[in-house]
Amino acid sequence: MGVIDERISGLVELGQQLRVDAIRASARAGSGHPTSSMSAADLMAGLLAGHLHYDFEHPHRAGNDRLVFSKGHASPLLYAMYRAVGAIDDDHLMTYRRLGSDLEGHPTPRLPWVDVATGSLGQGLPVGVGMALGARLGGSPARVWVLCGDGELAEGSMWEAFAAAADLGLGNLCVIVDVNRLGQTGPTRYEWDTAAYAARIGAFGWHTVEIDGHDPAEIDRAYAAAEAEDTPTAILARTKKGKGVAAAEDKEGLHGKPLPEPEKAVVELGGVRSARVRVSPPRSTEPRQRGQAMPLVLPSFPIGTMAATRDGFGKALEAVGEAEPDVVVLDGEVADSTRTAGFAKAFPNRFVECYIAEQQLVGAAVGLQTQGWVPYAATFAAFLTRAHDFLRMAAISGSDLRIVGSHAGVSIGRDGPSQMGLEDIAMMRALWRSVVLYPCDANQAAHLTATMADLPGISYLRTTREETPVIYREDELFPVGGSKTLLASEHDRLAIVAAGITVSESLQAAEQLMQDGVPVRVIDAYSVKPLDAAAMRQAAADTGRILTVEDHRPVGGLGDAVLDAVAGKVPDVRFAKLAVHGMPGSAGPTEQLAAAGIDADAIVLAAQRLIA
Amino acid sequence: MGVIDERISGLVELGQQLRVDAIRASARAGSGHPTSSMSAADLMAGLLAGHLHYDFEHPHRAGNDRLVFSKGHASPLLYAMYRAVGAIDDDHLMTYRRLGSDLEGHPTPRLPWVDVATGSLGQGLPVGVGMALGARLGGSPARVWVLCGDGELAEGSMWEAFAAAADLGLGNLCVIVDVNRLGQTGPTRYEWDTAAYAARIGAFGWHTVEIDGHDPAEIDRAYAAAEAEDTPTAILARTKKGKGVAAAEDKEGLHGKPLPEPEKAVVELGGVRSARVRVSPPRSTEPRQRGQAMPLVLPSFPIGTMAATRDGFGKALEAVGEAEPDVVVLDGEVADSTRTAGFAKAFPNRFVECYIAEQQLVGAAVGLQTQGWVPYAATFAAFLTRAHDFLRMAAISGSDLRIVGSHAGVSIGRDGPSQMGLEDIAMMRALWRSVVLYPCDANQAAHLTATMADLPGISYLRTTREETPVIYREDELFPVGGSKTLLASEHDRLAIVAAGITVSESLQAAEQLMQDGVPVRVIDAYSVKPLDAAAMRQAAADTGRILTVEDHRPVGGLGDAVLDAVAGKVPDVRFAKLAVHGMPGSAGPTEQLAAAGIDADAIVLAAQRLIA
Repeated sequence: MGVIDERISGLVELGQQLRVDAIRASARAGSGHPTSSMSAADLMAGLLAGHLHYDFEHPHRAGNDRLVFSKGHASPLLYAMYRAVGAIDDDHLMTYRRLGSDLEGHPTPRLPWVDVATGSLGQGLPVGVGMALGARLGGSPARVWVLCGDGELAEGSMWEAFAAAADLGLGNLCVIVDVNRLGQTGPTRYEWDTAAYAARIGAFGWHTVEIDGHDPAEIDRAYAAAEAEDTPTAILARTKKGKGVAAAEDKEGLHGKPLPEPEKAVVELGGVRSARVRVSPPRSTEPRQRGQAMPLVLPSFPIGTMAATRDGFGKALEAVGEAEPDVVVLDGEVADSTRTAGFAKAFPNRFVECYIAEQQLVGAAVGLQTQGWVPYAATFAAFLTRAHDFLRMAAISGSDLRIVGSHAGVSIGRDGPSQMGLEDIAMMRALWRSVVLYPCDANQAAHLTATMADLPGISYLRTTREETPVIYREDELFPVGGSKTLLASEHDRLAIVAAGITVSESLQAAEQLMQDGVPVRVIDAYSVKPLDAAAMRQAAADTGRILTVEDHRPVGGLGDAVLDAVAGKVPDVRFAKLAVHGMPGSAGPTEQLAAAGIDADAIVLAAQRLIA
Repeated sequence: MGVIDERISGLVELGQQLRVDAIRASARAGSGHPTSSMSAADLMAGLLAGHLHYDFEHPHRAGNDRLVFSKGHASPLLYAMYRAVGAIDDDHLMTYRRLGSDLEGHPTPRLPWVDVATGSLGQGLPVGVGMALGARLGGSPARVWVLCGDGELAEGSMWEAFAAAADLGLGNLCVIVDVNRLGQTGPTRYEWDTAAYAARIGAFGWHTVEIDGHDPAEIDRAYAAAEAEDTPTAILARTKKGKGVAAAEDKEGLHGKPLPEPEKAVVELGGVRSARVRVSPPRSTEPRQRGQAMPLVLPSFPIGTMAATRDGFGKALEAVGEAEPDVVVLDGEVADSTRTAGFAKAFPNRFVECYIAEQQLVGAAVGLQTQGWVPYAATFAAFLTRAHDFLRMAAISGSDLRIVGSHAGVSIGRDGPSQMGLEDIAMMRALWRSVVLYPCDANQAAHLTATMADLPGISYLRTTREETPVIYREDELFPVGGSKTLLASEHDRLAIVAAGITVSESLQAAEQLMQDGVPVRVIDAYSVKPLDAAAMRQAAADTGRILTVEDHRPVGGLGDAVLDAVAGKVPDVRFAKLAVHGMPGSAGPTEQLAAAGIDADAIVLAAQRLIA
């Protein structure tokens, strides 16, 4: 045999080893997706042995290639690869899917070699776009490899990513599509028609290669072609689900199940192997390139003037961008509205236009933060719902994301309900370990914008389109988990808890109530999550009555957060919650607040009722 | 002039009239999107005068064509069309965007000629797919016309729709893309490169036509071509934003604003016109074809056996499909898991495979219900978050949807957190006028499945993967807004409120507590929204202690619903909420319930603490 033949036969053997290990791990676990692993085994053997540049001992090295298993259910294959490179041993592999094991049903960053959790299909490529961009931004020669299933190409998010990657010219990105023809329930839409995929992806501006996904030589040539291209490359690999085991090969009804006779299958594949693969080292061991950090100089807004919190955010973002060279800003083609336009002008190299594609917006942010960048992703609060599943997965990944939603609430006015973020707090609060910040004035917005830069996990800033009175000095501090008691006396008969645009309405209402001889407390709960539970309980204990008011639906927002903090913890408290119950139409901002029953007049009325 | 010339000059005039009216309405309102209306005016003139078949006096006729303004911000153009056909008068037009007017900033079904709310871009086409499918299913010769902007083609949901429409062979669907080159903030990704769009959409299997969107003859020919095609057609029309007014034409910085000098612009366009367009009548006045209704025979599960609620749902869905000929079921390529596979087999013509494309799944359901169909759309609860924005818009539309999320909660077991619906109740409860149902046994699931068929608005059924004990008789009734008190005595020291999989855990816990001499109440809150507030308050008043337990995040779920119903309304109540606080890994279902602290043992412990 010549050198090439030897290499090929080594790849064949490695593919069989990966299959055998995927089968064994799933059999031991009693669940898992061996057949979906077997189809991609030769593809991954070729990548691992010939094209991946990676230091398994230093997984966070900037020069490392990235491998994303977008088809996360093929986790047994990924874990088999870890065994093949010596990152885990066989005992470890056999803990697959067991309580406490880091080898979960779908990969998560509990494993040091996994950058993002996968398992919700169609997310790996949008995230890969962010990784490839992050590598380029940091001057890294690393390449990003994304393994996808064919079924997940039905997800629109994939096409957002195809468009974005071509537009950004990400020649360092390669998607490997394991076209095994069978989805979970039955055949995929295009089955083995790799030409159908190639035509579509090619039309989106990608280089495409169609191959037999079980032919090591073809696989090798495809990777080499991807490495040589300046445009992103899609490898459409025709494969067989369950490849190599007659009882499973290209058979329906075997998705997500251990093979019926695993021992027999292992024998059919030539038995257990323990070949050790030497993976190529990273193309560079240089750290990420980044700019020079500078002192932070936040903008300031004079007390008593009017300014929109979105402007406070926008100006602060420029300041943070100046101070923090790792900050990258992503936009959903609404930079003028969200006020990221200033950052875009000041730092065009660290501004990513994602166009009207909110899944890609959040996916790119997730990818960027795996490369050490500090992303802020902004669009209308309403349209963040588009990226809900990406946010959910980002929480599982433990990603550090800064999400900004502008145009929150009915107060946007005449554009009507389609543009109003009214469920965004509910969505963001429900995310694991999220932080929800909702400023009422521009100085507060500026401080919170800066604070977010250093927060772990997903933090959310909710901004307002309309101008609101500046009530805080520029040097006031706003810790996460805090609140500001704006009005208080010993005789308060009620505490009004507000945030954002309802703070000034509450202050107006308090003035009116005071004139009627009813002293009330007013609390600005700018940190909606974590909430300042101590301040809420104290207010409840002191006054016995809590009135919450928010420009949001009555479910899942500020009112519910306060109830959760206070109910049952302080005796004899009465509650009332003002929120947006009806379906708004078009009207001016003050008309909207009145119609929704969350303006000063409505607060006065509700306060009087609660006290009566 | 010949007849053709006359016709063309009439179309030119109509285009100008629509522009003038869009400008006038926006100027009067002081806001709006006249420039985005002006680019598409000639396209809509040609459609209205030559190709739309519609009876404005009977908008709900099955034979009517449908027109969806996916670029909903061009609402002034739509309303100008209504004036041109005599559906509204000029005074009505001038109420645009005012408080109380049905001419909102973005169109909603408050207007009888609007089927769905738009304004969140990229939704019109997925909904149009549902409409076109609904028309075909009902034997209607109606055509569906969708007007899109170029910017919204960046949304992945558009590509889910392009794929679905071609796959379904919807020759009755035509998308008209107003390629005006300018987005909100700046140029779109492909600007005027209609060939770039045509290549992409063509690769997805559509017939494409590239035209000058201001040439009435080209426009006319394009519509005629669309009508002649068996495949869906995309018309890529090169247009100018602000067309016809020199100060606005193809200018940046004028998105979403009235023209600076509207009177001058009207003069430049030739002044106010009041031409009246005669629209072609529907191609048929026949009512929708539908099958024969039959008596409903629900499945039954014997008390004491084990059965999964997803199976209760799946079997009931078949029964409902048999009884109700209008029921259509949509799947996100997980029919075997959600258990819609039985329906698919029994009624293949009323089953729509949307593949792994949840936005299209919900969009198609929205479109179908505008045509009188009764859609049930099912996928994993976790993946419904993908369609959050579609659900939000469906609520604004007042759509009647039945959404089913399977694999809810940690109890799915080893697949891990990516597959677990843990935020779905929060998402669904926050939607306007939604109903959230969460059965604990298969008979209850079957009844609730049938109940949903007749519910208005968005109703959500949350099902469980694992088998749970059947505790209800097959003839038990479960009204929306009700609950079942499963255990109660005069001496109850605590009430446990549960739903779904935690009901049986609560019953086990109650047994243990009873053995320890602590009688407790157990309530099955299967109707999470609307909640049986009276029962909750009664339980709180009787026992003074409420313990909620749910397989969901602590935010926005059952616990919060109960707090909202009880806190402050009943004096001296103590609360405790058991929910999924941590991030689950892989483990068996019972291990997961234990790890999350929501199993019988955890309930006993929490109850003891609450009583202590």
